[in-house]
Amino acid sequence: MIPITKVRPGGRTARVADRVAVAVRDTLEADGFDGLTLQGVAERAAVGRATLYRRWPTRAALVLHGLAWALSDAVPIIDHGSLRADLAATLRSIGGFLSSRLGQAVVAAALGSEEGQAIRRTFWEGRAPEISAIFDRAITRGELRFGFDHEAAFAMLSGSLYFRVIVAGELVDDDWIRRVLLLLLDGQSPTWGNS
Amino acid sequence: MIPITKVRPGGRTARVADRVAVAVRDTLEADGFDGLTLQGVAERAAVGRATLYRRWPTRAALVLHGLAWALSDAVPIIDHGSLRADLAATLRSIGGFLSSRLGQAVVAAALGSEEGQAIRRTFWEGRAPEISAIFDRAITRGELRFGFDHEAAFAMLSGSLYFRVIVAGELVDDDWIRRVLLLLLDGQSPTWGNS
Repeated sequence: MIPITKVRPGGRTARVADRVAVAVRDTLEADGFDGLTLQGVAERAAVGRATLYRRWPTRAALVLHGLAWALSDAVPIIDHGSLRADLAATLRSIGGFLSSRLGQAVVAAALGSEEGQAIRRTFWEGRAPEISAIFDRAITRGELRFGFDHEAAFAMLSGSLYFRVIVAGELVDDDWIRRVLLLLLDGQSPTWGNS
Repeated sequence: MIPITKVRPGGRTARVADRVAVAVRDTLEADGFDGLTLQGVAERAAVGRATLYRRWPTRAALVLHGLAWALSDAVPIIDHGSLRADLAATLRSIGGFLSSRLGQAVVAAALGSEEGQAIRRTFWEGRAPEISAIFDRAITRGELRFGFDHEAAFAMLSGSLYFRVIVAGELVDDDWIRRVLLLLLDGQSPTWGNS
């Protein structure tokens, strides 16, 4: 996985990019994705419309820029000592993101626009190294049995947060995270007989 | 859970509602959520703008109407004989919906608009009776152990499809469904030791 490499040119260009990213985040927090317009962001960032439209010609491009900016401040990866604790910390962080206006706008923009694939890539490449590291450490610790399907496991754990926020419209809290980890890591058969 | 009750008045009002729903679906299939405008739907449905704007004043309201219309044609619930088979059929159906333009627009609209909660409710209340029935049948068959957390289990299974489509940008196919069901229903401990 390729970590996000951000071009951070100095001077005016960088300052404009930072101001636009902050304006995107603030607009999303105040008005949601539906309230995001290029005109509104230009005004809030105090950036000329021509400049803004040249670099970020669509709403999705603005969300993508806000996302890349937010991910560039991501905290370093911490080893919590066990697979369960590492996963809990990661799920808590994803849950917080999904419950935020920026997070919801990222998902909405990823699904609602031509740039969807670029948005997904930026998001997932910002996350994937952290996830890989968690499972690598678990293997090193001898915590995982041979052949364990981490890809499906992680999709189920983090996917349950998407379901909870997007479909059920409920919060992701520590109790929810405890429940999904229990179900996946406890290894009790849910079934009797030959289902 | 309350099933969706659709008011189906006869005559012109019903015909307008059907034409608008078809126009929403066709627009989403052709242009995606970003390409959906009230003006465009009015033209495609051959409905006066005043009529359209009065009944569906926002893009989200149009998506919600298209969703309710699509759900009203949902197939009856079929007993496939086992929990695994019932879940596989349901996941296949959700995967198909999430991979469709309508499904993606529903998610985008649920997250990007003021009406988000109404959209989630319409979607989930259209699905929930089917899901409840699956677990009720499994209990009747004696397939589930006491205390099995179906709510978390279903969120993980269907959530893995959201993750797969929204984040990884990959298709949901039968192999994926087999993998997640294996992980959840097989009851092998993924871990060694005290993770």
